[in-house]
Amino acid sequence: MSEKAFQDYYTEEHSLCYGCGRLNPHGLKIKSYWEGEESVCRFSPGPEHTAVPGYVYGGLIASVIDCHSTGTAAAAAYRDEGRPMGSKPEIRYVTASLHVDFLRPTPIDAPMELRGTVKEIKGRKVVVGITLSSKGQVCARGEVVAVRLNQPLGG
Amino acid sequence: MSEKAFQDYYTEEHSLCYGCGRLNPHGLKIKSYWEGEESVCRFSPGPEHTAVPGYVYGGLIASVIDCHSTGTAAAAAYRDEGRPMGSKPEIRYVTASLHVDFLRPTPIDAPMELRGTVKEIKGRKVVVGITLSSKGQVCARGEVVAVRLNQPLGG
Repeated sequence: MSEKAFQDYYTEEHSLCYGCGRLNPHGLKIKSYWEGEESVCRFSPGPEHTAVPGYVYGGLIASVIDCHSTGTAAAAAYRDEGRPMGSKPEIRYVTASLHVDFLRPTPIDAPMELRGTVKEIKGRKVVVGITLSSKGQVCARGEVVAVRLNQPLGG
Repeated sequence: MSEKAFQDYYTEEHSLCYGCGRLNPHGLKIKSYWEGEESVCRFSPGPEHTAVPGYVYGGLIASVIDCHSTGTAAAAAYRDEGRPMGSKPEIRYVTASLHVDFLRPTPIDAPMELRGTVKEIKGRKVVVGITLSSKGQVCARGEVVAVRLNQPLGG
């Protein structure tokens, strides 16, 4: 896929995150894209991401929901303002709250697909809803309240 | 410390979790203990657990809250039934829902201290509240609804 992911537009300082930073050599390096009105992230767990044999541990699910959601919040804000992704001044969001409902065990031997929808975008706040599926079944649902940084941390 | 942690009593099958399994060579290997009525977990983030330079990424915070809470739920159930930790049949809990409020950035260069309290223990459900502090400041609060496995997965 030649399309750039949301995370490919992050500045260097914001590309060190364990969850979504392209420059963190140990991290998950998740990638998020628009597909129409939804943001989509596909992530294949590694064998180390076990809960019990065969299933993904909850912390990985929470991590991917979190980073996919803050990326979605930033992308939604750029779109809402009619600005191209990555244009200055940089728009970045941090997580105020994260909620995950675990509906069934998530298989470790298949990619997880996360689909995000922007439930609210108002002032400095964006609320993102996430549906996480694997092998065609919804395994978890998430909701993230993301808050816009007045200026990027350290910026 | 010679005291055994909650996780040291888990069966082999439940010791592979990336968050809390003593047998996962890549994982976080968190350890939880009673301190009176509270359960305590101290965890030192690694340099790779970055969000932005100097601070811990949210997924690590969610992961440690999750595993410390399910461990607390199991320990509370053993205690509630007047049974020693690790006695058979094994008591294990899984996460039904996880909520995290991120109150301020969590420094990466200090241990995080998580203190858990059992807010409810009834039937198959235990609700655990978590306060996560670092350098003497509360950085996050969490709540986990944990549900008891009728029989251990794969058991």
